[in-house]
Amino acid sequence: MAYYIGVDIGGTNTACGVVNENCEIVARSKIKTNSSGNSLEYIDVLKVIKSAITAACEQAKIDVSDAESIGVGSPGVCNSESGIIENCSNIAFDNSPIRDDLEKEFGIPVYLDNDANAAAFGEFMSGAANGTKNAVIITLGTGVGAGIIIDGKIFRGSNYAGGEIGHTVIVVDGLPCGCGRRGCFEAYSSATGLIKMTLIAAEKHPESIINRLIEQDGRCSARTPYNAMKAGDPVGKAVTDNYVKYLACGITNVINTFQPEVLCIGGGVCNEGDILLKPLKEAVAKQIYSKNSRHNTEIVVCKLGNDAGIIGAAMLHKS
Amino acid sequence: MAYYIGVDIGGTNTACGVVNENCEIVARSKIKTNSSGNSLEYIDVLKVIKSAITAACEQAKIDVSDAESIGVGSPGVCNSESGIIENCSNIAFDNSPIRDDLEKEFGIPVYLDNDANAAAFGEFMSGAANGTKNAVIITLGTGVGAGIIIDGKIFRGSNYAGGEIGHTVIVVDGLPCGCGRRGCFEAYSSATGLIKMTLIAAEKHPESIINRLIEQDGRCSARTPYNAMKAGDPVGKAVTDNYVKYLACGITNVINTFQPEVLCIGGGVCNEGDILLKPLKEAVAKQIYSKNSRHNTEIVVCKLGNDAGIIGAAMLHKS
Repeated sequence: MAYYIGVDIGGTNTACGVVNENCEIVARSKIKTNSSGNSLEYIDVLKVIKSAITAACEQAKIDVSDAESIGVGSPGVCNSESGIIENCSNIAFDNSPIRDDLEKEFGIPVYLDNDANAAAFGEFMSGAANGTKNAVIITLGTGVGAGIIIDGKIFRGSNYAGGEIGHTVIVVDGLPCGCGRRGCFEAYSSATGLIKMTLIAAEKHPESIINRLIEQDGRCSARTPYNAMKAGDPVGKAVTDNYVKYLACGITNVINTFQPEVLCIGGGVCNEGDILLKPLKEAVAKQIYSKNSRHNTEIVVCKLGNDAGIIGAAMLHKS
Repeated sequence: MAYYIGVDIGGTNTACGVVNENCEIVARSKIKTNSSGNSLEYIDVLKVIKSAITAACEQAKIDVSDAESIGVGSPGVCNSESGIIENCSNIAFDNSPIRDDLEKEFGIPVYLDNDANAAAFGEFMSGAANGTKNAVIITLGTGVGAGIIIDGKIFRGSNYAGGEIGHTVIVVDGLPCGCGRRGCFEAYSSATGLIKMTLIAAEKHPESIINRLIEQDGRCSARTPYNAMKAGDPVGKAVTDNYVKYLACGITNVINTFQPEVLCIGGGVCNEGDILLKPLKEAVAKQIYSKNSRHNTEIVVCKLGNDAGIIGAAMLHKS
């Protein structure tokens, strides 16, 4: 059996898995990316990655050098050709030569890509986009992450910074976005965006069940407006309807642009299942430019959850 | 010298060119696509295409069979693999097997693609995107047409209907668009959109020079607000500033998604030169997600004008 090591660097944890050729994780490790709480240097993150790799291989009872390759998914602009992380907004990477440094340490081939690309490649290799050649994977989380697969390969753009679909504006002069623009898809369709819209509606409507649910749970989550809606609350219904409206807008934009075979959506809010998916699919079907085409994009839910990042990273040698 | 025939089917005219291997048009013909004024059938358009090809070759003093290939750029969803025009909104194509029909007639290989894709490929082969591997070409005309080149190949999407960037929404609930959506990039950034915004501003401001210019010229064109602005009219300035705002929004969306080496814009409004380009580039530079990248997309003006469609069609054998 051949083994491949996948590393998923996150702002909070760095996760590592030993993956077999069937894309199954046979052993894993997880280490806090920043245990000191001080500002992180590349050299510190490199140590964390090395420890995570060693720990996962110990658990799998293999030597690192027994594995075929290491794949790393990292936040930031990752030059997959040079193996250098050019820059990153939340970890202090600055032209960090992670591929060469890990190859020197472990003596096996190392592959690097952006974490959203790696997760998309995971869904492509063994998840919801498996068996296709063209797919877009969108994750509705803190932000809206996206990975694009064209002809079975990760699409990166000429400077490795492409695929930032979350930062395409759908509402000129709309809500402010972390990227500095206003009205980005991410500002409306991320879980964070949904929570913000829920809190605004709750304040406007003190009578809404939403307020009671927030008090019960001690916080507002992306689930809160859906739970309110399911309990018959008209404010919850309005919030979730509005969420679907913006989500359908952004997804239709992606379909009109890429016309992938499948568009996979992931993130906690997808746990709502058909309550989210049915109205979403209906809204998209009404709007797409390719209404008359014989083949239209299928909208499906991601299958691998957080494992997508590890599996995709481990399989980067095929990207 | 090898020759390639390029056909550009338009709603008004069908243009044909004999193109040499340096992408130069050495002879051309132009025939009204619909001379009868009655509703067009595929069989009628096919006749027009055959006549245009024969006429261009006569002018070039070659037999059609002396050419290496024929390339056809057509409106609608063009399946470049099967050579069939699947459907089209303004000409009655309905699974029309244009490749096989022309190959039967002329006995040389025939290639088919969408007209916007063909024009983009023309700019890629010998115009503003020449020498790159990744480019997006956007034409600001009656609509907003787009062609996407990835790794030197035309990107078509899995059902050949991709690249409809003009029909991505930038203003949820915005101006109505011909595609049925509201707030499409095309509704704001096409020449048609600019003219509409100019007319609205002129009506609101009877004192604006715009009204005088429209009277003088007998019509409002995309040039009108720019001429007013150049003459010191604050309303003209407001209209053109607003136009650049929406155009920059849509173009930034494209860059954040594709990160092409060059983004080429074409269409009459580009004749304004730096008056359009300077504020456009400044607005885009402020908004792009890849501000920290060492390589950013260069925004340039298309070089081939209407010839792009013929040249790109003629070169489709390389796509």
